[in-house]
Formats: sequence, C-alpha cells, structure tokens
Amino acid sequence: MIDKLVKNIQKTNAPIVVGLDPMLNYVPEHIQKAAFAEYGETLEGAGEAIWQFNKGIVDATYDLIPAVKPQIAMYEQFGIEGLKAFKKTVDYCKEKGLVVIGDIKRGDIGSTSTAYAVGHIGKVQVGSKTYAGFDEDFITVNPYLGTDGIKPFVDVCKEENKGIFVLVKTSNPSSGEFQDRLIDGRPLYEIVGDMVDKWGSDVVGESGYSAVGAVVGATYPEMGKVLRKVMPKSFILVPGYGAQGGKAADLVHYFNEDRLGAIVNSSRGIIAAYKQDKYAQFGAENYADASRQAVVDMIEDINGALDA
Amino acid sequence: MIDKLVKNIQKTNAPIVVGLDPMLNYVPEHIQKAAFAEYGETLEGAGEAIWQFNKGIVDATYDLIPAVKPQIAMYEQFGIEGLKAFKKTVDYCKEKGLVVIGDIKRGDIGSTSTAYAVGHIGKVQVGSKTYAGFDEDFITVNPYLGTDGIKPFVDVCKEENKGIFVLVKTSNPSSGEFQDRLIDGRPLYEIVGDMVDKWGSDVVGESGYSAVGAVVGATYPEMGKVLRKVMPKSFILVPGYGAQGGKAADLVHYFNEDRLGAIVNSSRGIIAAYKQDKYAQFGAENYADASRQAVVDMIEDINGALDA
Repeated sequence: MIDKLVKNIQKTNAPIVVGLDPMLNYVPEHIQKAAFAEYGETLEGAGEAIWQFNKGIVDATYDLIPAVKPQIAMYEQFGIEGLKAFKKTVDYCKEKGLVVIGDIKRGDIGSTSTAYAVGHIGKVQVGSKTYAGFDEDFITVNPYLGTDGIKPFVDVCKEENKGIFVLVKTSNPSSGEFQDRLIDGRPLYEIVGDMVDKWGSDVVGESGYSAVGAVVGATYPEMGKVLRKVMPKSFILVPGYGAQGGKAADLVHYFNEDRLGAIVNSSRGIIAAYKQDKYAQFGAENYADASRQAVVDMIEDINGALDA
Repeated sequence: MIDKLVKNIQKTNAPIVVGLDPMLNYVPEHIQKAAFAEYGETLEGAGEAIWQFNKGIVDATYDLIPAVKPQIAMYEQFGIEGLKAFKKTVDYCKEKGLVVIGDIKRGDIGSTSTAYAVGHIGKVQVGSKTYAGFDEDFITVNPYLGTDGIKPFVDVCKEENKGIFVLVKTSNPSSGEFQDRLIDGRPLYEIVGDMVDKWGSDVVGESGYSAVGAVVGATYPEMGKVLRKVMPKSFILVPGYGAQGGKAADLVHYFNEDRLGAIVNSSRGIIAAYKQDKYAQFGAENYADASRQAVVDMIEDINGALDA
C-alpha cells in the first residue's frame, strides 16, 4: 500500500492529503437542511449531513490528490450513525482510487491491538467466513505502550499489504510535555523515531519506503528535520499545515531528495475553505469548488517550496 | 461518577471490575450457533453472539460487582455491527446499576479529543437537539499528546459528571520501552503520574477521589506502590490480574488506607472461566455460572490480601 501511495503522489504531483474531519458547523446549511428534512435533527441526520458534505468534497478534488485522511473522532462523536458515515466515506474514497488513511490513533496491548488492526486494516474471522470491518488502507497508531502494542499492527500490514503511521511528534501546543523530555540526552520523540525505523525495517516496499510511517507535526520544523534522518525509510504524515500554523517553506526538510517521503495534511483549510475570506466568493452552495481551489493552491504552495 | 463508583464498591465490598472483552472463541458454541442460525456467519451474527454472551455474564454477576469494563477493540473488530453490540452492552450494564468503564484508550489533539469526549462521555449537538453517542460512565485515555489532548476530556467530565482513567504504566511486557525511560532521574510514568494528579485536582468528588484516575498494570507492583503516592486522589484501574500474571498480594499497595483507591480488572479470568480446569465442571452451557464463581473467588482473593 505504501507503493500505491507513492504512485498516487507521483501521478498527481501532489504530496498532500485532505483531512476529512467534518465538524457539523463546517457543513453548509443547505446540506444540513436536506439531511434533517429526511432524518430529523437526529444522529442519523448528522451522519447523512457529514456524508453528503464529504461526498461533495471528494467528487470535487479526487483527481487532484493522492489520499484522504478521515479523522474517526469526528464521526464517532455521533455514535453508530456517525461511524456508518465514516465507513461510507472510506468505501467511497477507495472507489475513487484514493488512498485512505484512517486517523484513528488506536493502540493497546498485544491481543487488543490485534483486534484494532483486524477491524481497521485486516479481516476478522466469523465462523468459516472473513470480513473487513472498516478496511482503511493506512491507520495512525499511538506508540505509548511500546513494541508489543505496535507489532500486531505491523503483522497485519504485512499480511494485508496495508500501512500505519505511528505518532512520533504531534502538532499540538503541549505535545512537548512528554514527547520532548530528554532521555539520555535525546528527546523521547527521537527514541520513538528510532523504534519506528526498526518496526518498519521488515516491511519496505518496492518504492524503498516502509509500510511503517510516522506522524510529525508541521508546527515543529526543526524536529521534522532531525526525524527525517532518524527514519530515512518512513513516510512522514505531516499534520498542522495551514490552520494550525505550519508553513510550506518549513516543510521542505520533511521530504527526501527524491521529493518523496512526506505527505502534508490539511483538514479545515480545505474542507471549510468556503468560510475563509480568500474563498468567500464561491459561497456556501459551492463549498466543494472552494475546496478544489484550496487544494490547487496548497499543491502550488508545497511544490513551490520544494522547487525553491 | 467517581462517587458512584466508590458507593458501588462499598456496597458490594468488591474492588473489582469485570472486563467484557469477548473474543469470539470465548463464546460457547450454543450461543454462536443460535446467533449464526439467525443472522448467518456475518458481522451481525458475530455482534449478536458477543452481545448474548455478555448478557449472560452480566445477568449472573451484576449483584456482586461494582463495575464492568468493555474493551471497545473487541467490538470494533466486527465493524459497525460489533459497535452496536458494544452500545447494547453499555446500555444494559447501566440499567443493571453497574458503572461502565469504556476501555477505549482514545487521545488526540484539542478539538479532536473534544469529539471523542463528546461521543463517549458527553453529548453532541445536532441542530437544536443533543444526543449521547455511546454514553459510558468512564473511559480510558492515552496521555502521549499532553495536556491539550487530555483537558477536553476533563472538561466534559466536569460538565457531565463522568470520569477518565489515564494510561500511566500499562501491564504489557514492553510497556517499559518508553514508559520506564528516565527523565531527570525519574521514569516517564512518574512524570505522567504527576500530571494525572494535576489534571484531576479540580474534579475531586465528595468521596475525596478525583474524576481523573490512572491505569497502572498489576504486573508492575513496585511501580504501583510509588504511583499510589504520586497520585493520592486518583483511583487506580489495575489491569493484568490473573491471566496476565498479577497476584492479589502484589496489589495491596495500589490501595489507600481506606481500602479504596484501586479497582482491579479481570477479563479472560472471569468471562472465559469455564475454559479453565478450575471451573470446567460448570460446562460451556453454564459458562455464566462459572463466571459468577470466578467473581466470588476473585473478590475473596483480593479482600484476603487486603485483610492480611
């Protein structure tokens, strides 16, 4: 799957991923109204609204982008009905040829991590049959529990040709509270980075990149530069561009010389583009066109920085 | 909700929690057969099987225990249908007066943690209405992202009178890989423990305990002893007793002088008791009676250690 991600990036010349993290207040009124007219102001109605919202954005952008990253929390907040919208979104994006990165940040001890892996990137056994519960292509995972919490995910990646991105240095303001603490003179995120490199050493694809990638926030470019060297074969999934403050010029060192090795996420900046002054002329009715323009601008911004 | 947990423990004189982590191979054949006869060997059939299995155990044990801890991964592996069984289990246990600890180990950056909090222990806004998606009483959360990943959960705890248990020192073999690393001479788990104490200082209930508790594995009793002192007002949720190797005598120091402050989890040891030689005489048909006996034995074991 890492090879498919690389191919999709090369085909689109766009090392970006669109974060499908729909807050209900991002969804234009006409979509909310239609969903509530059909299902009422219910969890089902909310699920329908965010699904229709997503579908519009995917239809308007799928030819420009290699991948999407639905954030499961934004669906899970609406319970079962929200998760149905998550599943529909995953399936639809895959039909469109996109690589789907489920931003689920799961992680537990051995057998429990296996259950998450099976449910999200593998197949579960039911009697004599097997089923894929959510069936994303990649998922994000949390490393706090150590190797025996991560290994089950890597095993399923190998069996099913899927991938993971391990949280290494997150984009939020207080990420340093634990992640930056020094251990034998090196910050924890580097120690985790060492392990990412190790966990991924056995699942390197034809592209030369590993099925085990890392999450490193755009908001900490100096750390990204170091981590690029610590994990040379890992793709870096980079949240924090745009709305959170990360700038394209800062992200150059997250990439390798081959212009690969990183994929920059934008969520709000793309999916709620129509709410920005810059794209206000599109109007809420044409929110998806605003998202398309924001994608074009983002690709130009990132590629411009890589060219410079 | 921490006060309800304390009351339930005092009423039952049982500082234990039953982990409802149903692997399909724990479910006796007669239950699987009935579920598959109705729904086929499908995800729906699997969901029905684990729900019926859980219901049997809850019916046979609810009068003896204060709380249950369903592990969401074991449901999530069956996709939407599994999560419906999770939700049914949560609702049913609450009807029975049990405190429900959703073992979900979520954690993300600010607004995303808010979405998880809202979905699991709070209420989500849909138009003019509000809904509780999963509605557990407590959930477990992962601290790797720092304060701004935890604060949204604490805020919802305050609003909704709910609680969280933060992963501090987990029970698995490789938990020490990151959690034990020394930072200024102290292991990371102690630094996280300090923060748990701080995060919880503002949400202390009438019982004197905080809505912010901690997860500390039974498999590391010396660390449990230290962490008890680091977080005097936090309840400690203790996984790893029984099947994972934790012994009652080791757990005495997880408790405070008031015989409160800790709640010991057993999952496999209770719910799959009928598979052990010790309870084999019950047979698979009477698996729930075997679970009841295993609960009685566990309570005696823990209380015996506390008396000694």
